[in-house]
Amino acid sequence: MKQKLFTKKFTLTPGECNGQQEMSLSFLVGRIIKVASMHADAWGVGYEKMISNRTAWVLSRLSIEMKRFPAITEEYTLETWIEDYNTRFSTRNMAILDSRGEVCGYARTIWLVLDLEARRTAQMEELNELRTLVLDRPCPIEPPTRMRMEIGKKIDSFAVRYSDIDLNRHVNSSRYVEYFLNQYPFEWYDNNRITRFEIAYAHEARPGIDVDVFREETADNDHALELRHGDNVLCRSRIIFAPRTEPIHIPFNG
Amino acid sequence: MKQKLFTKKFTLTPGECNGQQEMSLSFLVGRIIKVASMHADAWGVGYEKMISNRTAWVLSRLSIEMKRFPAITEEYTLETWIEDYNTRFSTRNMAILDSRGEVCGYARTIWLVLDLEARRTAQMEELNELRTLVLDRPCPIEPPTRMRMEIGKKIDSFAVRYSDIDLNRHVNSSRYVEYFLNQYPFEWYDNNRITRFEIAYAHEARPGIDVDVFREETADNDHALELRHGDNVLCRSRIIFAPRTEPIHIPFNG
Repeated sequence: MKQKLFTKKFTLTPGECNGQQEMSLSFLVGRIIKVASMHADAWGVGYEKMISNRTAWVLSRLSIEMKRFPAITEEYTLETWIEDYNTRFSTRNMAILDSRGEVCGYARTIWLVLDLEARRTAQMEELNELRTLVLDRPCPIEPPTRMRMEIGKKIDSFAVRYSDIDLNRHVNSSRYVEYFLNQYPFEWYDNNRITRFEIAYAHEARPGIDVDVFREETADNDHALELRHGDNVLCRSRIIFAPRTEPIHIPFNG
Repeated sequence: MKQKLFTKKFTLTPGECNGQQEMSLSFLVGRIIKVASMHADAWGVGYEKMISNRTAWVLSRLSIEMKRFPAITEEYTLETWIEDYNTRFSTRNMAILDSRGEVCGYARTIWLVLDLEARRTAQMEELNELRTLVLDRPCPIEPPTRMRMEIGKKIDSFAVRYSDIDLNRHVNSSRYVEYFLNQYPFEWYDNNRITRFEIAYAHEARPGIDVDVFREETADNDHALELRHGDNVLCRSRIIFAPRTEPIHIPFNG
């Protein structure tokens, strides 16, 4: 019996925390990818099946809204289900819950099938069963917004390195999130929290290429960011911050 | 009953792999830290106990020798035990085993207690029980070598950023490993594997500081590396590589 809802519980260990002693957004994106692939595995359409067809699931878009992030040593749960499947993409939602079952936030993710030889999106007849596994449960966050293009001014440049690369030999989806978050000073996160984050992956970033970062504050606390290699847009993001009601204070700790 | 040997099994999920579709060394260091803190928790001397004394365990030195790294979707096990404890540091060993129980490698780690207010090493009477928990089991790798100092020429510079910082508000121990590994091009790892790695943490690297990287090849495939902030040595490393007998080839994948 294939379960429409997949649930996985974790504990946020001290070594997994950021400097604010919470889960970082990039870590959460890694967990979302992990739980998505566990659910796909349970349905028999995970890594092993896909690679036997010379394909892989790749994350195309992601939107997250968080009331709060899990804190150090806290238990948390990810619940996931698919909202839609067609031959071009699948939409997979996540609820992030704390140990009392209270909602920390929600995420909506859109996945494509990548043909690993042709390096382009593929269709797979064998995935049609996913249509029957859609769960009619709402994901109560704003739909993805239209990303502004060719924005802002260049604020950073760097080269893609070994530790940035994943199994598909392009930049790891959660590492892109770090690229964006690292455009703000450490102390920024003591005073501000991320309430909404969107990312749209456009082109694969391969090892060794140079990446430029562009940014524009389009409204108060509402930031549009873009990664480019030359004229080629690799990835776009929108980050909405809110001032923390109480600034982070870590006792005895810097 | 406090167990002298602590064992934890994992599976290397696709999203956790590097571009060679193996476990990266920095990921392994993260797992070593995780399993060490789980064992300390089981003994009642983990994060919660230490923070109540305004202290934390921090990794001071680490040496690893690997015959091979676990591969994509492979099960692996970490076994850990302490070899020695005195009021200044504890020596904790790890065996990394594959799903058949074959040894992938060993690690020896040295931990200090950091006083989080004074930012210096501390002694804790309450930890004396650890002497009774030493396990007489060998860790068959070379002892830490004396690290060469003030070496090499400057090959890289960068600033410490938000994503590099851990709960103690200095650079994450496994992120230092990435700093070193990223000094080699991605393709280097298709043709070479790490057989031995040592790291010695000297001074805390705080958010925002500039870091310079120095390197010298002291013998064939034997590299000494150093991170400095100005004249201040932050961290030293030695990496020994061996050519892969068969260069990595990832099917359909770049």
